[in-house]
Amino acid sequence: MRKDIANLKYVFAPKSIAVIGASDNPSKLGNTILKNLVDGGYGKKIYPINPKHKKLLGLKCYEKIEDIRGNVELAIFAIPARFVPDVAESCGKKGVKGIVVLSAGFGEVGEVELEKRLGEIVLKYNMAMVGPNCLGVMNPKKRVDSIFFPFYKFERPKVGGISLITQSGAVGSCVADLAAYYDVGFSKFVSYGNGTTINDADLVEYLSADPETKEILLYLEGTKNGKKLLRMLEKANVKKPVIVLKAGKSKSAGNAAKSHTGNLAGDYMAYNAVFRESKVIEVDSVVELFYVVNMFSQELPKGRRVAVLTDGGGLGVLTADAVESEGLQMAEFGEETREKLKQVLPPYVNIGNPLDIVADSGTDIYEKSLRIMMEDESIDSVIVIVLFQAPAVDSRIIDVLVKESDRKEKPIVVVAVGGNYTKENRRILDGYGVPTYGCPLSAVKTLRRITDYSLFLRTRKR
Amino acid sequence: MRKDIANLKYVFAPKSIAVIGASDNPSKLGNTILKNLVDGGYGKKIYPINPKHKKLLGLKCYEKIEDIRGNVELAIFAIPARFVPDVAESCGKKGVKGIVVLSAGFGEVGEVELEKRLGEIVLKYNMAMVGPNCLGVMNPKKRVDSIFFPFYKFERPKVGGISLITQSGAVGSCVADLAAYYDVGFSKFVSYGNGTTINDADLVEYLSADPETKEILLYLEGTKNGKKLLRMLEKANVKKPVIVLKAGKSKSAGNAAKSHTGNLAGDYMAYNAVFRESKVIEVDSVVELFYVVNMFSQELPKGRRVAVLTDGGGLGVLTADAVESEGLQMAEFGEETREKLKQVLPPYVNIGNPLDIVADSGTDIYEKSLRIMMEDESIDSVIVIVLFQAPAVDSRIIDVLVKESDRKEKPIVVVAVGGNYTKENRRILDGYGVPTYGCPLSAVKTLRRITDYSLFLRTRKR
Repeated sequence: MRKDIANLKYVFAPKSIAVIGASDNPSKLGNTILKNLVDGGYGKKIYPINPKHKKLLGLKCYEKIEDIRGNVELAIFAIPARFVPDVAESCGKKGVKGIVVLSAGFGEVGEVELEKRLGEIVLKYNMAMVGPNCLGVMNPKKRVDSIFFPFYKFERPKVGGISLITQSGAVGSCVADLAAYYDVGFSKFVSYGNGTTINDADLVEYLSADPETKEILLYLEGTKNGKKLLRMLEKANVKKPVIVLKAGKSKSAGNAAKSHTGNLAGDYMAYNAVFRESKVIEVDSVVELFYVVNMFSQELPKGRRVAVLTDGGGLGVLTADAVESEGLQMAEFGEETREKLKQVLPPYVNIGNPLDIVADSGTDIYEKSLRIMMEDESIDSVIVIVLFQAPAVDSRIIDVLVKESDRKEKPIVVVAVGGNYTKENRRILDGYGVPTYGCPLSAVKTLRRITDYSLFLRTRKR
Repeated sequence: MRKDIANLKYVFAPKSIAVIGASDNPSKLGNTILKNLVDGGYGKKIYPINPKHKKLLGLKCYEKIEDIRGNVELAIFAIPARFVPDVAESCGKKGVKGIVVLSAGFGEVGEVELEKRLGEIVLKYNMAMVGPNCLGVMNPKKRVDSIFFPFYKFERPKVGGISLITQSGAVGSCVADLAAYYDVGFSKFVSYGNGTTINDADLVEYLSADPETKEILLYLEGTKNGKKLLRMLEKANVKKPVIVLKAGKSKSAGNAAKSHTGNLAGDYMAYNAVFRESKVIEVDSVVELFYVVNMFSQELPKGRRVAVLTDGGGLGVLTADAVESEGLQMAEFGEETREKLKQVLPPYVNIGNPLDIVADSGTDIYEKSLRIMMEDESIDSVIVIVLFQAPAVDSRIIDVLVKESDRKEKPIVVVAVGGNYTKENRRILDGYGVPTYGCPLSAVKTLRRITDYSLFLRTRKR
């Protein structure tokens, strides 16, 4: 691993941070960043740098980086682009290990030379650089946070196993904000913007080796090094799932991407080939990133055969449609399973898949039917549709689903469509690691993606 | 219109209701229905019928329908299937205009003769029948409600212009519950189950002529009369938009649909042809019904050319991708528009579509850019992406969007991805009739559907 890439560890978990361009003016990002570090409870050494002040937010303020006596591991830049290279040089001399350059005004607006100079300086000192033109980094565990968005507008996610690599700060902030909303935990967040020295492939390389990162999310517009990206994705994806959202697939979108971070989005066919070859999980939208992440709490399916258990006929039909259109298979129950089901089900229930136990059936029937499905070896995963609105279903259904899911025999996926009462129940299930979906199509699409990934891993391990 | 179909007016707005099988046992549906009518504030005459009681919930209880002196316009059946035909006969003799048969146990479990007999009795007296094997009806304005799901599990939608026709009670309850959650108003809800005498096509015919119904939602598994359905959809869809969710597209799903309401789902190709010919708006999931409904608060677009305004580059790129993949077009700004934009935008903004005004730009820049887009005749609709998380955007953006939307010049669609703060802002915008979406793809897909519908209407009106 290149030295500057290895130095990312100081960017994600520095023992000291300098904020270059710290400010007392709440409309300046140098103010928000300093405030977020203090209020966010970073707790280690913070050095504000601004020649105009003696103190900022109660912290001693320095004129320049050279004036600091102690070590500085990370410097966050919130100053105009034209000043960045010289200050980066000073950082290098001072022994700073990593810098995050939030400032825009480089290659993306034609200032290619300025960006090139910055890159050379950074590499000369082996400094890990995130940016320029980005939101920077966040590490909830270490309370490191360079994002200049206030907490009340953008909630930070809790500590967890997901790391996000994003070219776009806007998309990154949306994903992290949604993670907080969905109560999904993050290990590391990195918005790399123009990616002058450290790019997508480098970040995949670094996070692939990071033991705290359990899943990698990647939002990508264009890359500078397609070959390294493919190699790194292939390497990472067998160790931990990589979930990719690619933007800039169309022509006008590609042009927009270029003016945005100065990178060519390139031909989508080429990217698609990379994704197919590395077997990463590609999704089509921001929310789908979470649909996939959510399902990794379950066992991976051993095959494509799906059983559907429902108390609402129509939802069973919609789910079966989705199973076939997505290329999964509706499992055929064996004779033994059919017999067992007949024993426990009311006589008016037709034994079939989807198994519609009808709205009169309560939690007991769910429990018995689900148990039988979990025991049937010809079923690889079970989708349980719960009409929480139905009078016969009581809250004990939560216990049943959690208990069966905890057996870790095969994946259980819950579909529940509805308003407040349903959403509250879904939240409880999600919290216990039973993934829920508000629509049959989302559940099945996600299960198909997880199944593809699982089958890929199985061929690899053979 | 057939007489029994016309009599649906008594089902949706009866002056008196008999509940056949009313009960004091909270686990019986005859109890929930009676309770829901009383607690829901129906306020007109309610006649509980059950030979075992003198009074129920403070209301006089009758042994049989014949014992009631006054007129009964609607009778709701919550008794076992085998008793239904005889009681229906008594209802006919008594002059009841409509019946809702919630009871299951007819054709869907092989009791074809029983269902046939019921149908004949009903038609003999020209009674409008909803069911059997259904959830029945709801009319929020008249507080009519035969749904045996308790209020705390399934919130009822407010009064509005949407009417839902659904074969599946489960899907119907999910849609209505979600409507309450999204604060979308309903005119009529009808779950018709087996649809013995009054079917999908009949309900489309009736609601197409109903002045209170502004949009028709249709959830369909299979129909008994494809020709009438096509005719009615064609007739309805030019008067008010019909939005269809078809289930049972695949083989196993089709079988499931049959055991569910006894109707064949049939060959999807045939249905697809009907939908294409009638130009109804077909969606793929329950939530998409609401995506479409939401956008009808806006002007209909005059063409396919879309402008995208964003303060987050990545989201602009994702939106442009979706515009092209869905078959809409990214508008090309004219010279005049480009000039005007140059006047109001900071020098570092690249003038293009998507127009990325970058995260530093605040509400003023949004306001000016949006105004210019609204004035440009070569733009048919505007997608505004708002990164509510960004510090530069203040709450005045709400006023700007509502004001521009109120001009009714062209549709404005908002995309905002994020957690609590973003969702609160979306709720306010939705409340003021500015449709918002939590993901670029949903917004664009919906805009494409609305555009197709709009262009169809324009050819019709020429």
